[in-house]
Amino acid sequence: MKVDLNADLGESFGRYRLGLDEEVMKYITSANVATGWHAGDPLVMRKTVKLAKENGVAVGAHPGYPDLLGFGRRYMKLTYDEARNYILYQVGALYAFVRAEGIELQHVKPHGALYNALVKEEELARGVIEGIADFDKNLIFVTLSGSRPAEIAEEMGVKVAHEVFADRAYNPDGTLVPRSKPGAVIEDKEEIAERVISMVKDGGVRAINGEWVELKVDTICLHGDNPKAVEIAAHIRKVLEEEGVKIVPMKEIIR
Amino acid sequence: MKVDLNADLGESFGRYRLGLDEEVMKYITSANVATGWHAGDPLVMRKTVKLAKENGVAVGAHPGYPDLLGFGRRYMKLTYDEARNYILYQVGALYAFVRAEGIELQHVKPHGALYNALVKEEELARGVIEGIADFDKNLIFVTLSGSRPAEIAEEMGVKVAHEVFADRAYNPDGTLVPRSKPGAVIEDKEEIAERVISMVKDGGVRAINGEWVELKVDTICLHGDNPKAVEIAAHIRKVLEEEGVKIVPMKEIIR
Amino acid sequence: MKVDLNADLGESFGRYRLGLDEEVMKYITSANVATGWHAGDPLVMRKTVKLAKENGVAVGAHPGYPDLLGFGRRYMKLTYDEARNYILYQVGALYAFVRAEGIELQHVKPHGALYNALVKEEELARGVIEGIADFDKNLIFVTLSGSRPAEIAEEMGVKVAHEVFADRAYNPDGTLVPRSKPGAVIEDKEEIAERVISMVKDGGVRAINGEWVELKVDTICLHGDNPKAVEIAAHIRKVLEEEGVKIVPMKEIIR
Amino acid sequence: MKVDLNADLGESFGRYRLGLDEEVMKYITSANVATGWHAGDPLVMRKTVKLAKENGVAVGAHPGYPDLLGFGRRYMKLTYDEARNYILYQVGALYAFVRAEGIELQHVKPHGALYNALVKEEELARGVIEGIADFDKNLIFVTLSGSRPAEIAEEMGVKVAHEVFADRAYNPDGTLVPRSKPGAVIEDKEEIAERVISMVKDGGVRAINGEWVELKVDTICLHGDNPKAVEIAAHIRKVLEEEGVKIVPMKEIIR
Repeated sequence: MKVDLNADLGESFGRYRLGLDEEVMKYITSANVATGWHAGDPLVMRKTVKLAKENGVAVGAHPGYPDLLGFGRRYMKLTYDEARNYILYQVGALYAFVRAEGIELQHVKPHGALYNALVKEEELARGVIEGIADFDKNLIFVTLSGSRPAEIAEEMGVKVAHEVFADRAYNPDGTLVPRSKPGAVIEDKEEIAERVISMVKDGGVRAINGEWVELKVDTICLHGDNPKAVEIAAHIRKVLEEEGVKIVPMKEIIR
Repeated sequence: MKVDLNADLGESFGRYRLGLDEEVMKYITSANVATGWHAGDPLVMRKTVKLAKENGVAVGAHPGYPDLLGFGRRYMKLTYDEARNYILYQVGALYAFVRAEGIELQHVKPHGALYNALVKEEELARGVIEGIADFDKNLIFVTLSGSRPAEIAEEMGVKVAHEVFADRAYNPDGTLVPRSKPGAVIEDKEEIAERVISMVKDGGVRAINGEWVELKVDTICLHGDNPKAVEIAAHIRKVLEEEGVKIVPMKEIIR
Repeated sequence: MKVDLNADLGESFGRYRLGLDEEVMKYITSANVATGWHAGDPLVMRKTVKLAKENGVAVGAHPGYPDLLGFGRRYMKLTYDEARNYILYQVGALYAFVRAEGIELQHVKPHGALYNALVKEEELARGVIEGIADFDKNLIFVTLSGSRPAEIAEEMGVKVAHEVFADRAYNPDGTLVPRSKPGAVIEDKEEIAERVISMVKDGGVRAINGEWVELKVDTICLHGDNPKAVEIAAHIRKVLEEEGVKIVPMKEIIR
Repeated sequence: MKVDLNADLGESFGRYRLGLDEEVMKYITSANVATGWHAGDPLVMRKTVKLAKENGVAVGAHPGYPDLLGFGRRYMKLTYDEARNYILYQVGALYAFVRAEGIELQHVKPHGALYNALVKEEELARGVIEGIADFDKNLIFVTLSGSRPAEIAEEMGVKVAHEVFADRAYNPDGTLVPRSKPGAVIEDKEEIAERVISMVKDGGVRAINGEWVELKVDTICLHGDNPKAVEIAAHIRKVLEEEGVKIVPMKEIIR
């Protein structure tokens, strides 16, 4: 039984610091590194890739909307061609740092509102996946577990990592309960850990209405924005290891 | 006797069109493609790389200052680390499109004010060259013929293409006469062609004061911003061919 | 019988030129000047405001989404607070140039996808109108004739100019036929002129299905992107004047 | 005996937080609010202006280079026209928020590398001051005490506030010792307070070489980036008040 733990890193920009990258890096196996459009810059990318390398953490690109002001968190209507080439640009930019540090690019995980928009807009999903495939068909595309983009990627011959969220409530259909709804975000460390164990060992979790949702789990999204998030990340890792689950980079799971 | 002809392309951005790329592409052997910081965007990069491929023109990155508003034409003070990683980011971004189109990245030519600043600031030059080397030591660094950055690159084991300007007057020391001075820009098609022949066949040209300047010539910079520039480009190519000079991509000259 | 003619101007940016501002300025009474977010920059704003002043054309702000790459033409999800303060920022920026040139700011017309989004999202409309009112309740808000934002502005005590489009087909409910549909854009100069006369003199026009649509007409949107558009603008003005319609800035219509 | 205390505020951007604005606001009389080019955004500007108003702190614009990535801290070569219109744009943008909150704009203080470049480049200084005057000749231009830009502003009929730095060593000619030199930044709270008293009461301070430098002191620059800076700000204010110095906004000093 194996699972990958990922987190979004390298979200600082210029003079602005964000995220406890050094801390959370200790608990994850895959780092999603911001690529300069919604967050991150070349100096931050260099530093983050180096840090990942030092910690033996696999590196992926975390491309987002061209919206630094909104931190890539607000929906923007993109065409297929825009999506495809925006992804390609950002993947290439991060690849440069990975290559400079002598390691490999493992995956691509779209960021924020783009991640969410993909699940609803098939044309957008195709653009993003095609952009990844344009660069390298062996890159792993990270997307919401059981979502339509996961199917599309498989149809297109692109590797997929099904991702679950440790601290988010699920609807019975496997989608996430929107943050605006009560109960959407789970804050209790023990409850989060239990849910993670359920997801990894039992292949699912109770939805917000009590129904059982089956979930394919290749990678679990952790957070490193604040000390509490890092504490939860550490706890999840510890509990998973106690349960005998091997924590490995997603490239050792998806082949 | 061989020489490369290069031009700056892919300088459109979003809704804004710039440059007669389709036209000038017919006369050059190397295209310097803008990488989205001072000009260009992912859609433009894709289109330009495709166009180069269709025309059998070799592709290089044309990275610039993070200054779209100033089109990368105004000096900006960068540190060594900024220069190195800004170059790396932009080279990677362009590489993605080159890779997507199944061709190779041939060279890197810094753009505008950055090109000029390099010649004067050794630390900046080192940063830029190190950024290129970080990505791939086999990339050719294009810089002002006989300049200090050319020496630095050679010391660092990075390939260099010495570039001359067809339509610019030279000082006796091999630097360009600043555009602000009278006589700095040569506009007559025949005079430009004669100077190019002199540079390529005689290894030098008359400086603005009449002295002879020796110039190493691997590549000649042409322009494609306006119909007259394209006409000059066509004429230069024709005259060089008539003189028996082979027009080839710089990778066939620098090894 | 009076009507205002408006056009979007000042859409150049840095090195990039767009629009035949000098030409179309001769035929309009109100200029919508881009405010640097989706197009325009401080030098362009200065020049455009000066040009409007020289031509006796009234000046308004033309604020847009923070999306230069997309020219403000793609939808972006904004909150009420974002809309309100983004508008305020851009209106203030343009006001500075108007004040520097010793003239007055007449109106605010949201640009592109923001203009369209307003009609559908009441919360967004409220944010935009509140942003205008925050600056000056006497500024005229230009919006789609008969639309919900026009009502909201009136409820909020903000002056409104109802705008019609000379070259666009209408649905029977007064909305524009999307550009993607056949027949959405009318290209024949005479047909455009006839429609404009119908709108101004008869207070409406035939919808795409032949039904009559009543339209309140304070201002007509003309274009200046290309020579044909300028020719149409000139023709519309000529025909209106021949029909005895007075062409005046919207401040002489809305009080 | 009167002096103004100013600090740079509103330097957060989008998701990124910077500065202890609420804290330092208690000790100052004038707030320099970032205008969105090197830092700040419309939401931050609104919030900061409101906060200043609540604290009875006068508001000024803090315009900078178009360089968010470099936080306006690196030199950029601007023409007279660029400087003039960039300042005008940013002053207008901030004015909108000041007007929306029903207060007045008091001053303009250029930010970072632009502040420093002014002192050395007369043409740049003229552009900046002309941009301020274009908007309103009664705005106070804040610049380095005794510098050439202060003279130029006076010649041009623009009000000037001479600014000193509480924690910076001076050269005998009244310029600041560059941060890169040892002893450039003074960190001891008591020493800083003593220097401030010397500046305000004795009209000067010991230069780094022990010589006496006369300084005209209208306003003292404090910092609010970190808890220690806020502590120093509080201490300076306390000591000044104990010495009988009245702390008032600069508009009550410069008339």
